[in-house]
Amino acid sequence: MGRWQPDARGRLERAAMELYTERGFERTTADEIAKRAGLTERTFFRHYADKREVLFGGAGALQALFADTLADVPASTAPMDAVGTTLEIVAAGFRGRHAFARQRQAVITANAELRERELVKLASLSATMADALRRRGVKEPAASLAAEAGIAVFKVAFERWTASTGRRSLSAFVREALDELKAMTAGT
Amino acid sequence: MGRWQPDARGRLERAAMELYTERGFERTTADEIAKRAGLTERTFFRHYADKREVLFGGAGALQALFADTLADVPASTAPMDAVGTTLEIVAAGFRGRHAFARQRQAVITANAELRERELVKLASLSATMADALRRRGVKEPAASLAAEAGIAVFKVAFERWTASTGRRSLSAFVREALDELKAMTAGT
Repeated sequence: MGRWQPDARGRLERAAMELYTERGFERTTADEIAKRAGLTERTFFRHYADKREVLFGGAGALQALFADTLADVPASTAPMDAVGTTLEIVAAGFRGRHAFARQRQAVITANAELRERELVKLASLSATMADALRRRGVKEPAASLAAEAGIAVFKVAFERWTASTGRRSLSAFVREALDELKAMTAGT
Repeated sequence: MGRWQPDARGRLERAAMELYTERGFERTTADEIAKRAGLTERTFFRHYADKREVLFGGAGALQALFADTLADVPASTAPMDAVGTTLEIVAAGFRGRHAFARQRQAVITANAELRERELVKLASLSATMADALRRRGVKEPAASLAAEAGIAVFKVAFERWTASTGRRSLSAFVREALDELKAMTAGT
């Protein structure tokens, strides 16, 4: 086997998700993931700092995507609309990732430490959006509320999407949740 | 000193908050808290399982309060109104707790592990409210969205209240945040 392994990262990710699903996250080692992928442990650690990063390695990029997308929405857009547009654009980036997202969600749900890590990730995304809103001139508490409500919508939509067959896109679930939140708060 | 110590729990709580504020949560021991309160370590452990419970001991009672309050709201009340009413009633229970809440928030903000624990607590409160809403016949995703939006409002209001002088009540901050969320979602 040569040094260059085509799609090593993708193979490691698929192997990790298989093993986490089969025997649980705790009982899987980096070496086993590498073996399942037909690669060496060294290669695993060239792509991931540890076995948790297979599940959370995208968190930094996702945070940057939220910040950049929100910053690009026209300045005249109202805070909640800017958040809604951001959520839909971010959601579109999950196209083709349903199988992975579904498996990942099941692995995370089964492990208390991973559930906590996921909450921390969502809180970081909310803080990132609140920050981006304040930089657009949105005052408090509006900035924090729009960000928190947006992450609430994203969380609920994401969970429904991963529980679904995957025929409807995440964007569709996000739009549905946004409309539902609007209808509920308008009705009060 | 007799076996019966008047307000031992309150004295331990105040001593703990003083020490957590002075030297940080990590560098404080249960024995030091007891000594500062003029009590024994044994008495400390009669009231609290560990030093973290001084900060999170009320979580179970708070969860029950959310569930019971929401269950008592008239069945005809719309989901978001039922959540709003629940938040205001729960908030009223924090009267006289501003000094403690303010100190507690500062201690938690300074410690990553405590911040995670606080996120877990908020997620549990959201799950409790979603559950109570489903038992009222509210369908998904409305139940989860109303619960998540409600906790977002409570979190933002609570942080603003603890950062304030304490002259305005938590209920007032909750009402303000609810109105702000309504205005923002209605405007879209």
